[in-house]
Amino acid sequence: MEAANFFLQLAVILVSARLFAEVAMRFGAPAVIGELMAGVVLGPSLLGFLQPTEIIQMMAEIGIILLLFQTGIETDARRLFDAGPRATVVAIGGFVLPFLLGFGTSYLLFGHELLVALFVGGTLTATSIGVTVRILKDAGRQHSMEGQVVLGAAVVDDILGVLLLAVLYNFSRTGDISLIHLGTVTLFIAMFILAAPVAAKLLSSLIGGNYHRSRMPGLVATAIVSLVMVFAWLAHLIGAPELLGGFAAGLALSRRFFLPFGLVIHSNKKFRDEVETDMQPIVQLFTPIFFVTVGLSLDLGAVDWSSSYIWLFSLVLAFVAIAGKVAGAFLLVRDHWLVRSAIGMAMVPRGEVGLVFAELGRAAEVFDDATYTGIVLVIAYTTLFSPFWIKLFYRLYGDREELTTTSRARQAE
Amino acid sequence: MEAANFFLQLAVILVSARLFAEVAMRFGAPAVIGELMAGVVLGPSLLGFLQPTEIIQMMAEIGIILLLFQTGIETDARRLFDAGPRATVVAIGGFVLPFLLGFGTSYLLFGHELLVALFVGGTLTATSIGVTVRILKDAGRQHSMEGQVVLGAAVVDDILGVLLLAVLYNFSRTGDISLIHLGTVTLFIAMFILAAPVAAKLLSSLIGGNYHRSRMPGLVATAIVSLVMVFAWLAHLIGAPELLGGFAAGLALSRRFFLPFGLVIHSNKKFRDEVETDMQPIVQLFTPIFFVTVGLSLDLGAVDWSSSYIWLFSLVLAFVAIAGKVAGAFLLVRDHWLVRSAIGMAMVPRGEVGLVFAELGRAAEVFDDATYTGIVLVIAYTTLFSPFWIKLFYRLYGDREELTTTSRARQAE
Repeated sequence: MEAANFFLQLAVILVSARLFAEVAMRFGAPAVIGELMAGVVLGPSLLGFLQPTEIIQMMAEIGIILLLFQTGIETDARRLFDAGPRATVVAIGGFVLPFLLGFGTSYLLFGHELLVALFVGGTLTATSIGVTVRILKDAGRQHSMEGQVVLGAAVVDDILGVLLLAVLYNFSRTGDISLIHLGTVTLFIAMFILAAPVAAKLLSSLIGGNYHRSRMPGLVATAIVSLVMVFAWLAHLIGAPELLGGFAAGLALSRRFFLPFGLVIHSNKKFRDEVETDMQPIVQLFTPIFFVTVGLSLDLGAVDWSSSYIWLFSLVLAFVAIAGKVAGAFLLVRDHWLVRSAIGMAMVPRGEVGLVFAELGRAAEVFDDATYTGIVLVIAYTTLFSPFWIKLFYRLYGDREELTTTSRARQAE
Repeated sequence: MEAANFFLQLAVILVSARLFAEVAMRFGAPAVIGELMAGVVLGPSLLGFLQPTEIIQMMAEIGIILLLFQTGIETDARRLFDAGPRATVVAIGGFVLPFLLGFGTSYLLFGHELLVALFVGGTLTATSIGVTVRILKDAGRQHSMEGQVVLGAAVVDDILGVLLLAVLYNFSRTGDISLIHLGTVTLFIAMFILAAPVAAKLLSSLIGGNYHRSRMPGLVATAIVSLVMVFAWLAHLIGAPELLGGFAAGLALSRRFFLPFGLVIHSNKKFRDEVETDMQPIVQLFTPIFFVTVGLSLDLGAVDWSSSYIWLFSLVLAFVAIAGKVAGAFLLVRDHWLVRSAIGMAMVPRGEVGLVFAELGRAAEVFDDATYTGIVLVIAYTTLFSPFWIKLFYRLYGDREELTTTSRARQAE
C-alpha cells in the first residue's frame, strides 16, 4: 500500500471516530457507540470506503493493548484482588451458561451438527474486554465495586475463551481433545498472571530509577510502550491473550501495586506521574482505531436480510446470549439485584472476541454462510446495544445506594 | 505478519534506539548517531535481526512527518521567511554543485554511461532533512540564525530533489524530458507552500475554537495527528514530498504564525499549549523508528569490501559530495566563514533522501551492483559522520560571536 493512502485512511478513521462519538454523546449515547458506528458506516457494511488493512489492524491491536495498559494503571490491585472470588464466579457462570444455552439452541432447536453447535456455543462465551472497559469508563463507573468485578470477570473470561478456542480448533482438526496441551497452556497462563506484574514492576523501577540520568527527552514514551509491547509478546508466546500483557504492565505501574511477600521497591513518584501524562495522548491516539476496526469487521452488508432463517436464528441466539451472561452475574446470590444486573449487562458485548470465534468457525469451514452471518448479527446486537442499556440503567438507578457505596467509600479515602 | 512478532520488533527498535543513543551521548556523540547505528547493527548490515517490514516503514514515515511537524511548530515563520533568500542560495548552490561534481566524477573519471552519471549526480543532490533537523536539535542550535537557513535550504532542497527525481525517472524510461509535467508539478508545489499553512491554520483554529465544547478527552491527539496526516497526503497528491505537509501543518500552529494580508484568526492559547504537550510523547514515540529504519536500509552487509573499485569510487564520490554541499553554503559571500561552514556541514547528510535516489537507480537497472553499493557507502559516510563533525565544530567554535548573536538576540526578546 502506498504510504499516502495509509495516511489518509488513518486520518479518516480518527476524524470519523471522533465525529461519530461526539454525535453519539449529543444524543446521550456513550462515545464508544459512535466509534463502533463509524466503522460500521465507513466499512463494508454501508459505504465500503474503508477496509481493515493489515497496518490498520496492527495499530488497532496496539490500541486495545494500550487501553488495557491504561485500565491496569487505573486499577487498584488490592480491590481487584478483593473482587477476585466474585469475578471468578461471574466469569465461569457467564462462560458456562451461554455456552450451554448456545449449544442447546443450535443443536436441539436448529438441528445443527455437533461441531457447528460447539462453535456457536463457543462464540457466545466471549466478552469483549475492550468494549466492556470502555462502557464502564464512558459511564464513569470504572472504579465502582461492580466495575472491579466486571474487569476481573472479563479478564478471566478472555483466558477461558482462549483455552476453549484452542480446544475447539484442535477438535475441528483432529476430532480429539488434548488435555495435556490444555493443561500446559493453563499452567503457563496462571504463571504469567502471577509473574508478569512483578516482572513489569521490576523493569519499570529499573527505568524509573535511571531516567533522571538521561539528558535526552522521550524516555517515558518509548520505554513504556516497549515494556507494554514486550509483555504483549510474552503473553502471546505462552498462549495467553496479548492484551493480558498490556494489563499486567499497567497493573505493575498502578499507584497501589505492591510486590508479594512484603517486598518493597522504591517507586519514583515523578516518574509515575510522567508515565500517566505522557502515555495518555498515545493511548488516546491508538484506541479509537481499535473500536473503528471492530465496526469495520462487522460486515453487515453481507447479511441476506430477506432470509427468515437468519432473522430467527440471530434473534433467538441473541436472546440466549444476553440471558446467559446476565444469569451468570445472578449467581452472585448475596449481592443486590441492581449490582447483579449492572455486572451482567456489562458482560454482554461480544465485540472482537466473538468475531475471532466466528472467523475461526468460518475458516475451519464449520459455519456455512447463513449461520456465520447470523452469528455476526448476534455479535452486532450485543456489542452495539449494550452500551445504551447500561447508560440507561445507570441513569435510572445510578444514584441508588447499592451502586454508590463503594464509589463513595473510595472518594472518602 | 503475526501481531506478536510486530510487537516484539517494535519494542526491539525502540529499546535499541534508546540504548544506542544513550551510549552515543556518553561518548559525546549526538543521539541521532546512536539511533542510526542501532539500525545498522540490528539490520542486514551486521546482525540481520531486523528487517524493515512494511508496517515498520509506515510508522517510520509517520515519524519523519511528525518530526517535521514538530520542527514547524518550533519555527518562527517570520525568521524563516527572513532567512528565505539565503536559504534559497544555499539550496540551489548545494544542489547544482554536487550534481555537477557527481556527474563529472562518474562520467569523466570513472567512465560511466550518461544515464548512470546523471543518477549518480542526482543522488548527491539530496539532503536528509530529518537527519539535518535532528543534528541541529541535538546540538541545541535549531533556533540559531544558521539553523533557520539550513532548515529553509533543506526544505527547498527536498523539493528540488523531487523535481529532479521525476525528470530522471522519466528520462530513464522514455529518453525524454517533459517540461510541461515539470512545470505543472513546480506550480502545484509552489501553491501548496503558500496555501497549506493558511489552510492548516484555519482548520486548527476551527478545532481549537470548538474543543472546549467536547466532554470527551483525547481531541488534541487525534485531531492534530489527523491534520498532519491529511496534509502529508495532500502534499503527496500534488507531487510534493509528504513531510512538507507535516512541516506546513506545524508552521501553521507555531507561536508566531500570522495569516497574510493582516488577517488575524483568534488563537486559543490553552489549545496551543495542549497541542505542544500532547503531541510531544507521540512525536517522541514515532521518530526513533524513522532513524532506526534509515540505519536498517543501509545494507552494508552487501558491500564487497575487497573491491578496490568500490573503495575508490565511494571515497572520491564522498569527497565531492561533501565539497559540493559546503561549497554551496560558501556562496553566501557576505556571511562569516564560520556561519558558512556550519550551514555547509549541516547540509551534507544524504540519509533517506539519498537512499530513495539510489533505490530508484537500482530499480530502473541504471546502477550495477558495485556502483549501487558504492553509492550506499557514500550515503553512509555522509550520514553517519556529519553529526560528529558538527558537534565537534560547535564545541570548538560554538561560543564565537558570529554563531551566537542571533541566539542571544532571540533570548533577549
